[in-house]
Amino acid sequence: MANPLALTSGEPAGIGPDITLAAWLRRRELDLPPFYLLGDRGALADRAKALGITIELADVTAEEAAAAFPRALPVVDAGRPATARPGAPDDTSADAAMASIRQAVTDVMSGKAGAVVTNPIAKSVLYRAGFRHPGHTEFLAELAATGGRAPQPVMMLWSPTLAVVPVTIHLSVREALAQLSTDLIVSTARIVVADMKSRLGLAAPRLAISGLNPHAGEDGTLGMEDIEVVAPAVEILRREGILAKGPLPADTMFHAAARKTYDCAVCMYHDQALIPIKTVAFEDAVNVTLGLPFIRTSPDHGTAFDIAGTGKANPSSLIAALRLAARMAAAQR
Amino acid sequence: MANPLALTSGEPAGIGPDITLAAWLRRRELDLPPFYLLGDRGALADRAKALGITIELADVTAEEAAAAFPRALPVVDAGRPATARPGAPDDTSADAAMASIRQAVTDVMSGKAGAVVTNPIAKSVLYRAGFRHPGHTEFLAELAATGGRAPQPVMMLWSPTLAVVPVTIHLSVREALAQLSTDLIVSTARIVVADMKSRLGLAAPRLAISGLNPHAGEDGTLGMEDIEVVAPAVEILRREGILAKGPLPADTMFHAAARKTYDCAVCMYHDQALIPIKTVAFEDAVNVTLGLPFIRTSPDHGTAFDIAGTGKANPSSLIAALRLAARMAAAQR
Repeated sequence: MANPLALTSGEPAGIGPDITLAAWLRRRELDLPPFYLLGDRGALADRAKALGITIELADVTAEEAAAAFPRALPVVDAGRPATARPGAPDDTSADAAMASIRQAVTDVMSGKAGAVVTNPIAKSVLYRAGFRHPGHTEFLAELAATGGRAPQPVMMLWSPTLAVVPVTIHLSVREALAQLSTDLIVSTARIVVADMKSRLGLAAPRLAISGLNPHAGEDGTLGMEDIEVVAPAVEILRREGILAKGPLPADTMFHAAARKTYDCAVCMYHDQALIPIKTVAFEDAVNVTLGLPFIRTSPDHGTAFDIAGTGKANPSSLIAALRLAARMAAAQR
Repeated sequence: MANPLALTSGEPAGIGPDITLAAWLRRRELDLPPFYLLGDRGALADRAKALGITIELADVTAEEAAAAFPRALPVVDAGRPATARPGAPDDTSADAAMASIRQAVTDVMSGKAGAVVTNPIAKSVLYRAGFRHPGHTEFLAELAATGGRAPQPVMMLWSPTLAVVPVTIHLSVREALAQLSTDLIVSTARIVVADMKSRLGLAAPRLAISGLNPHAGEDGTLGMEDIEVVAPAVEILRREGILAKGPLPADTMFHAAARKTYDCAVCMYHDQALIPIKTVAFEDAVNVTLGLPFIRTSPDHGTAFDIAGTGKANPSSLIAALRLAARMAAAQR
């Protein structure tokens, strides 16, 4: 039997518990892969009650989770209580969220879990508790560090019809211009290709690399970066045998016919990558972290404090994240 | 009878003649509004022959065009020969293209034509011939100047499901950052609202105004421009009674449900506006110039020299441009 997926609780006051319960309830209908929640079973039971859901929770170890999954939602205790009410993170929130993430990484690194799937966290809550990483992904990279050296995590947004990777991510446009470099494009693209081969089962992933400027700079009349920064990166990648084309005008890369010509669009900045995928796959885009020594996926939304505990949270992105994690784990085996 | 639309020849060696012929041939099936081509009838006849199309061309004045339209493609002589072969612009190209544009503006300003629809030009060909405008749109604005003052043209990309306006257009990302200002956002949005009222028949157009930075700057952690430049513009517009909201995170503005909440997305730079519309409406997006004293639409593609004269050119964007021009002319009457 395949190892189960380790699902973190995320921020306990957010919609993580809601969508976890909703996903498990649809396990048969959707033939979902076995997963277990790393968190506080009492807090999850309270949320189920608040939502009016009758559900069996199994208090298990990671090793017992897959067997329990068909009849009960397996919960592995992450060792921290979570007392926050829906929508109102409290002093236990940050500790509980981080303990869950740490345990998930331990489980996947030791082979108990096939992959890590993370529920959304609230960065502001973690920052107040002394969290010092730019985000979820960087925290995972540090937990995965070997010999003191953290791997370069690469964020991919994946959907059945489009996968995108922004080379620069959570930076202002001005700062993205400053940080974009040939080296960063090349190192990012190499990780994309390696992981799409080993974890998505593509023998020769095809990359479409966007230009930074409109019309990919139109031969330098709309900025020199496409000639000086992007084109050299494409050239280096091609010399390595990678199927990369570009720099391409970003506006014509994402219509249905264009999407069929590549496996991943590598874009220069956040909105260039996220506008098209959220336009065509708003409900079912999955956030995948490439470049880590384990598989990690995540729903592509936040904690949604305003609807936590109301029953309005949509589990479709979490369901897509669970499915993709299982598919990647199977491809890697 | 409504005035016919004045259709320019565009670059005579491009696909303008091909799509003009193809559109006219489908006039009955698609119930297209009457239009006339401003150009060289002999050159058009040659192109029809090269394409193997049997077609009646009517040598008419603008006043006679609408009556002739059902039985023949009306051609009004623009006074310049066009001798270029398909795909190979020659010394007559720039002169012919510019004469056609000038005559179209004269016709629409004098009331002979209801609107101007322009076929694509090749800027590089015009530049070699001494053309000194940044593009087609700015040339039209200058031709429309009254009292020596050219109006501010605003580019809108329009489709049945999404309309977008980039505040900065054909600039590198770096230059767009430098030129973006509260004033430019405000003056652009005012023109959008005025023209959507008078020419698209919307009583109270709703604008969705994007943030410049990812997540609209996330309260200043991802750049200060959204707080310092974009938000004040939205505030000014709202005080004028304009239904504007923003700055909004651009990545979540364009999925199907979000698109229903506004009539036009006003975006900060080229790709932010053009990525979503070319993703959802690649075939039938129309380029509309707002802010001019007349209506001007245009297909949203270039001269496509590589397929001129081959029969492969797709007339759907020109057809959409003709339809929209007629709709706008009717709304304005």
